[in-house]
Amino acid sequence: MGRRQDIVEAAQTLFAERGYHHTSMQDLGDALGMQRGSLYAHIGSKDELLVEIVARAAHEFVLGMEQIVGQAESAPKRLRAALRHHIRVVTDSLPASAVFLFEWRHLPPHERLDVARQRDHYEGLWRRLLIEGVAEGAWSVPDPALTATFLLSIGNWTAQWYRPDGRLTGEQVADQIYQLAMDGISRRQEVAR
Amino acid sequence: MGRRQDIVEAAQTLFAERGYHHTSMQDLGDALGMQRGSLYAHIGSKDELLVEIVARAAHEFVLGMEQIVGQAESAPKRLRAALRHHIRVVTDSLPASAVFLFEWRHLPPHERLDVARQRDHYEGLWRRLLIEGVAEGAWSVPDPALTATFLLSIGNWTAQWYRPDGRLTGEQVADQIYQLAMDGISRRQEVAR
Repeated sequence: MGRRQDIVEAAQTLFAERGYHHTSMQDLGDALGMQRGSLYAHIGSKDELLVEIVARAAHEFVLGMEQIVGQAESAPKRLRAALRHHIRVVTDSLPASAVFLFEWRHLPPHERLDVARQRDHYEGLWRRLLIEGVAEGAWSVPDPALTATFLLSIGNWTAQWYRPDGRLTGEQVADQIYQLAMDGISRRQEVAR
Repeated sequence: MGRRQDIVEAAQTLFAERGYHHTSMQDLGDALGMQRGSLYAHIGSKDELLVEIVARAAHEFVLGMEQIVGQAESAPKRLRAALRHHIRVVTDSLPASAVFLFEWRHLPPHERLDVARQRDHYEGLWRRLLIEGVAEGAWSVPDPALTATFLLSIGNWTAQWYRPDGRLTGEQVADQIYQLAMDGISRRQEVAR
């Protein structure tokens, strides 16, 4: 079991760095110091690894968000929690999230459709949170789908630039996104005046 | 010359759809109805195509932004123009921008470094605009580098979801990003009350 987990982790690092198609089982064996043939004692195929990495990330995104959306907190508090959750999933395993975000289109057709459904469901939970905030009078969001896309764009792109040894924790990044989303940049100026 | 342009356009579509490494010269020939060998009458290598696509996109991003930053307009007007410019470059050729944003890491080392420098320069222009707006009293931006990254994240992710036949023009997308960036979502609620 530990060996299988090692293989999955090596695979997500290689897929993230080189791309799925540019990583061979030979590369994976080299990275682990294993014979290519021995890999097949633990996993069925390269496809299977991609499916596992993407499905696991999708599950993490969705599961945490379902809990947050259902909480008996104000919409702004749930929005802050949702942003922290998204950034936590992205930054906890940058290679896994890069594979989820950028390599998922290389999934076999059936699994690809399944992941597309989970992404839709996840985005739907974000839209729901934004719409509930309108009902609560917390904010005005004329186009919840577009606003959800914008917030998730910032969160997703974090996988492209965030470094664990950088100057910001993931939570600080999430809270800065929250502040921008809630107040914008011109509002802060008025508060500061 | 027209033939070479056809090849570049077919290459950017294939690279964007399948990834650079998963596109062969044979695929490119098939897409164009040309023999693989005939392609080499027009281009030197697959690498050369990637370099050309990425360099051209980088040039477009930078050139327009240099003009906008230098304009004698207020910072908010320049920010709106900058967002429209970024979204225009992304949406005018979605395949070329997808290649620029997601396949540039497959460039040969020298060209990769060159593009990294241009990306830094481009982000620097965004930071400069945000800092000038602070000096003008247009807004408060405690962390211009992070805010620039957030705005560019939304702009870049557009390449992942925007469809020319969808419900929004690129300019409408840009203006919605502008409104979110300037006022946030909670501010609009106060205006609406």
